[in-house]
Amino acid sequence: MPELRKSPIVKRWVIIATDRARRPSDFHSEKKEASSSGGFCPFCMGNEDKTPPEIYALPHDGRHSNTPGWLTRVVPNKFPALAIEGDLGRRGLGLFDIMNGIGAHEVIIETPQHDLEMGDMPIPQLRAVLHTYRARILDLINDTRLRYMLIFKNFGRAAGASLEHPHTQLIATPITPRAVKQELESAQSHFFDKERCLFCDILYQEIKDQERIVSANEHFVALCPFASRFPFETWIFPRKHSAHFSHASDDLLHNLALVLRDTLKRIALALDSPPYNFVLHNAPNIQGKARRPGYWQTLDLDYHWHIEIMPRVTKVAGFEWGTGFYINPTPPEQAAQYLRDVEVSWPD
Amino acid sequence: MPELRKSPIVKRWVIIATDRARRPSDFHSEKKEASSSGGFCPFCMGNEDKTPPEIYALPHDGRHSNTPGWLTRVVPNKFPALAIEGDLGRRGLGLFDIMNGIGAHEVIIETPQHDLEMGDMPIPQLRAVLHTYRARILDLINDTRLRYMLIFKNFGRAAGASLEHPHTQLIATPITPRAVKQELESAQSHFFDKERCLFCDILYQEIKDQERIVSANEHFVALCPFASRFPFETWIFPRKHSAHFSHASDDLLHNLALVLRDTLKRIALALDSPPYNFVLHNAPNIQGKARRPGYWQTLDLDYHWHIEIMPRVTKVAGFEWGTGFYINPTPPEQAAQYLRDVEVSWPD
Repeated sequence: MPELRKSPIVKRWVIIATDRARRPSDFHSEKKEASSSGGFCPFCMGNEDKTPPEIYALPHDGRHSNTPGWLTRVVPNKFPALAIEGDLGRRGLGLFDIMNGIGAHEVIIETPQHDLEMGDMPIPQLRAVLHTYRARILDLINDTRLRYMLIFKNFGRAAGASLEHPHTQLIATPITPRAVKQELESAQSHFFDKERCLFCDILYQEIKDQERIVSANEHFVALCPFASRFPFETWIFPRKHSAHFSHASDDLLHNLALVLRDTLKRIALALDSPPYNFVLHNAPNIQGKARRPGYWQTLDLDYHWHIEIMPRVTKVAGFEWGTGFYINPTPPEQAAQYLRDVEVSWPD
Repeated sequence: MPELRKSPIVKRWVIIATDRARRPSDFHSEKKEASSSGGFCPFCMGNEDKTPPEIYALPHDGRHSNTPGWLTRVVPNKFPALAIEGDLGRRGLGLFDIMNGIGAHEVIIETPQHDLEMGDMPIPQLRAVLHTYRARILDLINDTRLRYMLIFKNFGRAAGASLEHPHTQLIATPITPRAVKQELESAQSHFFDKERCLFCDILYQEIKDQERIVSANEHFVALCPFASRFPFETWIFPRKHSAHFSHASDDLLHNLALVLRDTLKRIALALDSPPYNFVLHNAPNIQGKARRPGYWQTLDLDYHWHIEIMPRVTKVAGFEWGTGFYINPTPPEQAAQYLRDVEVSWPD
């Protein structure tokens, strides 16, 4: 059973793998294998029996589980960071906090097509991916042990992807990740002060300024944040206030597909298909917390879901890990300008 | 003039370079150059005129500035992230906080020898490096604009080092980096509750448990923290409580040299010389803050300086950046065991 451990110094929870613990020699061999790729792909159509049995797939009708004919397909991660069975086992160990590594770790296979990057997807395909995200969150939200459903994508080996075939991951945890917690706290404190959503206020200012806007449509705005950590970092916000991605309508997801594809394509063209990560910052699952008074009562009003896209073009990582302090060599105003100026077109 | 900008959502300060802003094409060319190395080195003995004029060097006597004969040498970073001249210019921009990018960015050349890694240095040489760290902090502390002197080392290209020659960097900033701030807050809150240092309490527990200890001597303990983010992450603490690295005696620095070299050598042998980063977490410079009551009054009692060493053997970076949530595939107890079991010896 993996463990969740909290640092009393940094107040950060960490997942510690215990079952398949990696030894020093595992890291050596990884070095050597890093450049090999190609060959057999378990995520390609026809190889459904090479993954753990599927949890979900689109379309719903007209096919048997674990057979070809799908648009998107969700399977458990073959090497999950967390275990789905068991209780939380919250406990203390002297000064340290520890709990069982309970949670879900799923892989969302975005398309049957091995080399179809998200920035090149036909809109119906990308819409199916977003529908799949929503469906998985709506399913897992019923598990009151789980506090947070984190959807994230690693694209390219340097961004941590171990398989080429387009996929997103979902990790559901019994705690809220620290970066989201900080956002929740900032949002709540702003709301208590002003009775307005912090994100809505920022959007209002950004749309007025225009200089950091990358892409926009009726329902969404993509922009390079004022205090971007990374060159060309881009966040996508729904214009209309909402704390919950999982409440998004089909129409909203269609518009999200449009702006997400447009943004990813601009980044790919401007930066020569760089590795990137994105994370979907959604409101936490408060089902299990409902009895704790006060803290979560304004969540629907004060939080605002969004997607954070981080192209990986600089290598200044370790220092930043140790300090939480970032040096960004490209001002976000200039990054947004470059991304706006890219000429984009799609066949569909 | 670079800018310091603060995110109202994440409450994080970021340095935004403005003078030498990097365009998309700069990142393309970087990709191609990544594998080239070797050739001329501005940090080697005899090339003193190829760096900006030196700020400090050891030994003090018997040589002219910017000539050979040094043990360690400190020069301004040729491409500084911050500017040393000017005022802080704190200001607001609608919802955003901004200030001038004032600070120091120095390079500490650790040895005249191009290929002498820290884990292989003779102790007198490594002692000179640590003396140099201390001297630079003690000098910069007089500048009341500067709140934090951050000493960090990137070893290996994957860890962000752009030059091979052994060097450390020092960035002095008008703000305290967020990761240090979190530690300061945890330490203060523990002290208010118990009138004891949180780090001393952890050391006491860890020394009793023994299972996460990597290396130790009379004055220092190196251990893999209970909630390590990274495989083989190792922190070095002085046994005796002290908030300020800059107050360390010569004898203490000698002992630090011993434990630091031993730890780095064990990591190098266990993991085949992996890239790594380390950061020195020291108390902030409170000279300029003295007038603000309360907050800093217990700093000397509640904070405990230390070094955090992070080997870069996994590539799971971007997801962690977006979430503050880490998956560590090697339990720290096992990592410590591997590092303890390494056989180390030095010629001196």
